[in-house]
Formats: sequence, C-alpha cells, structure tokens
Amino acid sequence: MRIRLGDLVDRLGGQLIGDADIEVEGIAPLDAAGASQITFLSNPKFRAQAAATRAAALILSPADDAAIGPSLAGARLVTANPYAYFARSAQLFVALYAEPAIPGIHPSACVHPDAEVDASAIVGPNATIEAKAVVGPGARVDAGSFVGRGATVGEGTHLHANVSFHAGCEIGARGIIHSGAVIGADGFGFAREGGVYIKIPQTGRVVIGDDVEIGANTTIDRGALADTIIGNGVKLDNLIQIGHNCVIGDHTAMAGCVGVAGSAKIGKHCTFGGAAMVLGHLTIVDNVHVSSGSMVSRSILEVGQYTGFYPLAKNADWEKSAVIVRNLGTMREKIRELEKIIKTLTEKK
Amino acid sequence: MRIRLGDLVDRLGGQLIGDADIEVEGIAPLDAAGASQITFLSNPKFRAQAAATRAAALILSPADDAAIGPSLAGARLVTANPYAYFARSAQLFVALYAEPAIPGIHPSACVHPDAEVDASAIVGPNATIEAKAVVGPGARVDAGSFVGRGATVGEGTHLHANVSFHAGCEIGARGIIHSGAVIGADGFGFAREGGVYIKIPQTGRVVIGDDVEIGANTTIDRGALADTIIGNGVKLDNLIQIGHNCVIGDHTAMAGCVGVAGSAKIGKHCTFGGAAMVLGHLTIVDNVHVSSGSMVSRSILEVGQYTGFYPLAKNADWEKSAVIVRNLGTMREKIRELEKIIKTLTEKK
Amino acid sequence: MRIRLGDLVDRLGGQLIGDADIEVEGIAPLDAAGASQITFLSNPKFRAQAAATRAAALILSPADDAAIGPSLAGARLVTANPYAYFARSAQLFVALYAEPAIPGIHPSACVHPDAEVDASAIVGPNATIEAKAVVGPGARVDAGSFVGRGATVGEGTHLHANVSFHAGCEIGARGIIHSGAVIGADGFGFAREGGVYIKIPQTGRVVIGDDVEIGANTTIDRGALADTIIGNGVKLDNLIQIGHNCVIGDHTAMAGCVGVAGSAKIGKHCTFGGAAMVLGHLTIVDNVHVSSGSMVSRSILEVGQYTGFYPLAKNADWEKSAVIVRNLGTMREKIRELEKIIKTLTEKK
Repeated sequence: MRIRLGDLVDRLGGQLIGDADIEVEGIAPLDAAGASQITFLSNPKFRAQAAATRAAALILSPADDAAIGPSLAGARLVTANPYAYFARSAQLFVALYAEPAIPGIHPSACVHPDAEVDASAIVGPNATIEAKAVVGPGARVDAGSFVGRGATVGEGTHLHANVSFHAGCEIGARGIIHSGAVIGADGFGFAREGGVYIKIPQTGRVVIGDDVEIGANTTIDRGALADTIIGNGVKLDNLIQIGHNCVIGDHTAMAGCVGVAGSAKIGKHCTFGGAAMVLGHLTIVDNVHVSSGSMVSRSILEVGQYTGFYPLAKNADWEKSAVIVRNLGTMREKIRELEKIIKTLTEKK
Repeated sequence: MRIRLGDLVDRLGGQLIGDADIEVEGIAPLDAAGASQITFLSNPKFRAQAAATRAAALILSPADDAAIGPSLAGARLVTANPYAYFARSAQLFVALYAEPAIPGIHPSACVHPDAEVDASAIVGPNATIEAKAVVGPGARVDAGSFVGRGATVGEGTHLHANVSFHAGCEIGARGIIHSGAVIGADGFGFAREGGVYIKIPQTGRVVIGDDVEIGANTTIDRGALADTIIGNGVKLDNLIQIGHNCVIGDHTAMAGCVGVAGSAKIGKHCTFGGAAMVLGHLTIVDNVHVSSGSMVSRSILEVGQYTGFYPLAKNADWEKSAVIVRNLGTMREKIRELEKIIKTLTEKK
Repeated sequence: MRIRLGDLVDRLGGQLIGDADIEVEGIAPLDAAGASQITFLSNPKFRAQAAATRAAALILSPADDAAIGPSLAGARLVTANPYAYFARSAQLFVALYAEPAIPGIHPSACVHPDAEVDASAIVGPNATIEAKAVVGPGARVDAGSFVGRGATVGEGTHLHANVSFHAGCEIGARGIIHSGAVIGADGFGFAREGGVYIKIPQTGRVVIGDDVEIGANTTIDRGALADTIIGNGVKLDNLIQIGHNCVIGDHTAMAGCVGVAGSAKIGKHCTFGGAAMVLGHLTIVDNVHVSSGSMVSRSILEVGQYTGFYPLAKNADWEKSAVIVRNLGTMREKIRELEKIIKTLTEKK
C-alpha cells in the first residue's frame, strides 16, 4: 500500500514542492530512507546529510528549504514543524498497514450483562468487564484486562493487555493505557492508633481526560474522598506512581519511574525527567521542568528548570566528596575560625 | 441506608453527646459535610471551622470538646483519636453501601481439582488457582489473578484483579493485595563463572502475616533457601520492591517506589518515605524513619529519622553547587593551605 | 529421590574425594545441612564452620581442600568455583523434585489458529497467544500471559503468570520472564507542537537474546523505528524500566528499580546497583559498575566503579549539610576572599 504525496499533503497540510503523483510506502530516518520512502530534517545541523538523501521526499522547515531545497533531487514537504509532521506521517503509515480490527467481544471474555459495550468496541480474550461499566465507541480492551464496576472507557481509548481499570474510574477519548498499568487501586491512607494502622477507605475515583497516554505498569491511585485528576493530553511513561488525590494539569509529561506522592497539585505543560520524585501536598505551577533523579521537597511556585541529584564520580572520588559532604558543618566552622584569626591579624595592623 | 448515632457508638466506642436516634448516611470533611453526614476534627487548628460545621455530628477529642463542644449545634462523638474514629466510621459506611459479594467460583475461573477453596470465598472471572492452593473463608481472588501451587490465601484476604501469588507463598487473615502485585517471583540470585551468570534456584517462600496491605505492582521476591518474611500489619504502597530473604517487622509502613535489596532486616514500626532505598544485608532497628528519596547504605542501629537526598535548586544553581561538590577535596586542600599560612603568620608574631 | 555423589560429579564435574555411592537428597547452607545433604564453602573465612559440618559432602576449592580437607569426616567435591557448583547442584535438585510439566494447551487458553505452538510447549490457563506468534519447543506460557501477534518465544523459555509480551518481539532460548513484566509496550516518543504532544508510532521491536532473565513487573519498551536490543545472558531484576532503542550488552546485570532512558547503549559485563538511573542517548562501555542510587548523567567511557548518591545522615545533620550544599558558592567565595586577604598580609611582610 502506498500514499500519493498529493494525498499526504491534503491530509496533513504543508507545502509540496515536487510531483504530487509520487507514491511512497513509509517513512525512515535520513540515513536509512530509500527511494520509496519519505524522510525528515528536524535539526539544521543535518542539512548536509539531508541534501544527500535518496528519499522520495524530504519534510523540512522553510528555513532549511531556503538553504538546501533547490539542490535536492526529490520532492520537498515544507512545514513549520517537521518533527510533528514526521509524527503525523508515521501515524498515517501505521494506520495504512495495521491489521483491520474487527469489533466485537471475544467469546472467552467475561462481560457482565449490565455492562454497556458499544457495538464498535473490541473486547479481547479473557478480558473482564464488570457490571455498569461503559466501553465507548471504537474503544479496545485487550486480552486479560479488567474494567471494574461502573468504570468508563471513552471513545477510541485503548487498554492494552493485562490492564486493571478499577470501579468507577473514567478515562476520556483517544487514550492509551499500556499493559500492566493499574488505575484506581486504593490510595495509601491510614490512621494510626497504638502503633497500628487503620485503613481509611478510598472512596474517590481516578478521572482521566482526553488524549492521555499511560505507560506500562504505571499506577494511579483513586482518591480518598475526592478524586485523583489527570488532565487532557497528559503523557505518563512506564512505572510511574501517582498517589491519591493528585491533580496533574493538562499536557504535562513524565518520564519513567517518576513518583508523585498524594495530594500534590501539578500544573499544566510541566515535564519531569526519569525518576524525579514529588512529595505529598505540594504545589507545582505551570511550565515547571524537573530534571531526572531530582527530589521535589517544597512547592515550586516559579517557572523554570529545577534539579537536585548528586553528581556521579568514580567511586573513590565520590567516597572522598561524600565524607566531606557529611562534615560540611565542620568545614564551615573552620572557615569561620580562619576569618576570625585573619580579622585579628588585620586589625592588629 | 443510614446508621443511628447510638448504633455507631455501640460499634465503635466513644462518648456520644447528643441525640442517639439521629440517623446519618456518611462521613465527609469539615468543609463538605452536610446535615445527614458526620465529620471529624483531628487538628485543633481547625476548631473554628469545626464550630461552623453543618454536620449532624462531629468526632472530636476531649480537649477539643472542652474548647468548642458546648457551642456546637449538632451531636458530638468524643474519642481519644478522632482520626482513627473517622477511619473506622468510613469503613462502616463503605460496608453499608457495598454491593453484596456473592460467594462462589466464576465459571470462567480455572480452579484445579486439588485446590481447596472455601465455600464462603469468591473466585473471580478468568482467575487461576493451582493444585493444592488454599483459599480461606471469606477470601476473594479477583479477575485474572493467579494463585500458585500450594499457596495459601488467609481468611478474609482480598487479591484484587491481576495479582500473581506464586507457589507455596502464604498470606494471613484480612490482607489486601492490590492489582498487579507479584508475590513470590524468584529472587535475584546468581553465581558468576567466567563472566557468565548461573542461576541459583530460589526455593524459599514469601510468608506474610495478618492485616497486611500490599500496593499495586509491588513485588516481593521469594527467598533463596530460607523465606522472605513480611510481619503483621505491614503496609506497603505501590511499586515497591522487596528482595529475597528480607524480613520486614510488624507494623512497618513504606510509601511508593521504595526498594529494599535482598536479605535486609527491617525492624517494627519503621516508616520509609517514597523512593527510599535500602541496600542488601543491612539491619535497621525498630522505630527508624527514613525520609523520601534517601539511600540507606549502612545499617541503622539507633532510633531516629534519617535523610539523604540532594536538595533541589534552580538548574543553574544546582550546576554550580554540583561542580563544587565534585571538587570538595580541592576546597578542603585550599582551606588546609590557608590554615598553614595563617599559622605561620601568627607564629611569626 | 536421591542422587549418588558419583552421578553428581559425572554431570557437574569436579573431583570427588570420598565414597561415590553415598546418596544425597538436597543442598543446604553450612550451618543447616544435615547428613543426607551436601553443602558448600565459598569463602575461606568459614573454614572452621565447614570443618564442623554434618553434611554428607562439602563442595570446596582446592585451596580450602588443602587447608581443611583431610580433617573432614564426609566426602569432598573439589572445584575451582564452589559457589557456581552450588548453583548447579541446586538446579539439579530442583529439577529432581519438580512436578512433571505436562506439555499441552490448557482448554481455557486462547490460542489463535494461526499461532504456532510447539507440541512440547505448555500454555497455561487463561493465556492468550495471538496470530502468527511462535512458542518454541519446551517453552512455557503460564496463566494469564499474553503473547502478541507475530511474537516469538524461544526454546525452553518460560513466561510466568500475567506476563505481557507484545507483537513482533522476540526472546531466545532458555529465558525466564517473571510475572507482570511487560515486553514491547510503546516507547515514550512524542513530537511537540503548540504545547501539545503528538504520538510518534513505535514500530520497532524488542529483541532479546538467549539465557536472559527478566524480573517481575520490569518493562522493556519497543523501539521507535529500530529495535530495542537485550544481549545474551543479561539479568534484570524487578521493576526495571528499559526505554526504547536501548542496547544492553551481553551478560550485563541490573538490580531492582533501575531505570534506563531511551537510546542508551550499555556495554557487556556491566553491573548496576538498585535504583541506579541512566539518562537517554548515553554510552556506557563494557565492564562498568554503577553503584545503587546513582544517576548516570554523562557517558562513561572508562572502565570502573561509579557512584553518586547523597550520604545518609540523621535528619538534623542532613538539614545542616543540605543548607550548606545549597550555598556552596557562597562558601567558595568566602574562601577566595580569605585567600586574597592572606595574600595581602603575606605580601606586606
């Protein structure tokens, strides 16, 4: 299956310079694309490489086109954001080659008679859909997944194999939840009495917006009384923990192994590097960027990039610096003593 | 469904000041509770807010009752630990509204004929119970969960959907294991020979006490030869790793993303903040508290709170401090030189 | 069931000093082994304990045998690497006592008619094998596991319960994947446009070599365009995240909670302590050892042991040192001022 360049531009926009009837069958990086593929230039420093491409067409920015366009043998797709254009083109080719998904409920799935599964939805082998759950039009619940009582899976949302999506939780349209993710397990809430923990029932839900992607084995806990809220367009990588009653603002992204403790309120358009941690009940405003491996122990109320991890060193060097770090108080004391002595010395003069 | 205040006190204790025949239907926070709900005051700084509550009854301490009790319009439930009373009341209301759970084995579940499932237990859709496993009275094994050969699930213990509970492992009464948790996978044990790892079979079990809660996607490995032991009342949050042959003392609690390497022995009544890590073969005594994001690299033999994470800063500031941390040895050397010079200067005098 | 010492040596090698007809039924540590078991001495400091063992036979090195061998009552199995010999013996005993695994597909499993499951393979209850997947000779896919379209599970490889192994991915021979692991979920790849993330389809695979062990709830993402590669003999513990397009060299081992961001290239025979993190697109050469809790933020091009975590302290002491770490720039400034003053003082002389 192939796509005409003219059709590509009709669907995705951009300016085509070249023959609209050229047909292409896929997309590949600059150095790998062949004569039946398109490729993209998203960084001007690869202009020389782009100029030498064998691809049928090159996606590039107006600036890059001005610089190298005329010298190119193939067609050009000029667009303000070549990387986004690449993403959309790749989506198009994937859809083109995908096996047709046939709606319906696999005979081995257990769908409660009081559940509501749209006729255009797909429920895979050995999946379980409990009473009063709703699976929307075009949604997919893959093999071994669980949708709890009264939960809602929005239109076109895809739960991969072995997802657990618990009672009463909701996810909007066009979402993706990867395998092993657990949405709506109980938050970690206890009262302490006489050294023993007494469970506080977690009766809130997890409410997830549209266009959200949740990575493999990521966990998002249900709220204690109020709900845990995940905004529209949020992207969570694998093995992330979101505690009960957190609020994650729209279009915030978190890399793998991030942890957010309960009741943290995180703004929109934030990014968190891998294994960053956020303590409970903190507030982080919009457009904050936290580096990998950094512990957020106070609220962040000012836009910016924040970092806090111990720099790596050869083990022997680390041991030296770690000993000094442990004893920085002593070092400061010593400096103060030196200051005093020097003050005396200079005053004597 | 509603509960009489008199019945509440009969079940949960405490002193009721007010009309025992008032009926309530739930519990809510101070600022949200309506006239058919109860609420609680667990922190004296909210006394003013509590005094203005519209709730039918207020749970509060004797001290708070002395301060604001007489001025309240509604009933009062006086108890030494209002937060624990809140937890127990909430449990009561949850039980009141819960769908009745009907004992029995779902027809799609695979229960080995040599397994022993109590008649009062529930086995959900697509669950698997292997030979010689025991599922106790009132226990629940939800959809897609796996109970391995000869494993034991104690009375009233609840395995949520998609739990893996492996051969020979045991959990006591009233436990909760959340979705995706894996109990009794092999510990990480190898002998090294010629640069290649040779697997050491992990033939121990995981043995878990009563009243234990284990979070979503948490993993507890089986022991190598001896068992991994989790004490009574232990509470583990999500995405925690407990290595083989660890011993976790009674009523110890760990927040999400904590890791404990193999053969660590952790005392009773300890707490671990999120993403704290404990190296292998260490000992931590009772009543130790480890802060979030802290690496325990030596045994802790003295009660107290321990911390070790790099403080967060704006990225530019962190970069400056990180460079100095890397070169603290040089700074120390410089100070020593200054000391020498100053000593010479003062001695010259 | 028992094994003759003579048969043990025939299978595992080593030199037997003692009666080849002695039969043993298991292996145990030095202090626990009884008269029908064998034991091992892998550390010379336990020679005295070994000399007192009641075990039928002792596995030990030539050096230890020279030191204590003649004084021992039982038989001796002399070998260059007693710990590896212990591992192999333990494997033998486990195989001896294992329930016979009966090949075949459980009636509740859903195996697509276009899947290819070897007659000697085992597919457990409620497992799902999709079209064009291949399950090799002697392989096992346990209860609730999922093998996606066109995926390949190599000869003798064992997927424990509730594993998700996605479309097109491959694992070689003699592998072990523990419960809850997710192989081949989408990598975390997006283009950004107008503050919104656009998904980049992840069309690469995960390709895993022979003799690989993957821990419980570990996640390995499929590549974006090219594949994610896990070499032969790699051992990954639980709750590890491997990003898309990573390459992990042969016989590298990672302890629990490690995270490796996308496109990192890690050499052979490396080791990573628990919760170590590696940023994306870095290169780490062969034989590098990263300590627990350490963040690798630059490529490591030189063999060695590397460390970087904040040393633990009593909380009050940490607070002091953390304040100083935040203000190290000020301290450095102060030292520079002192240097200047001292220079002036000495020059005046």
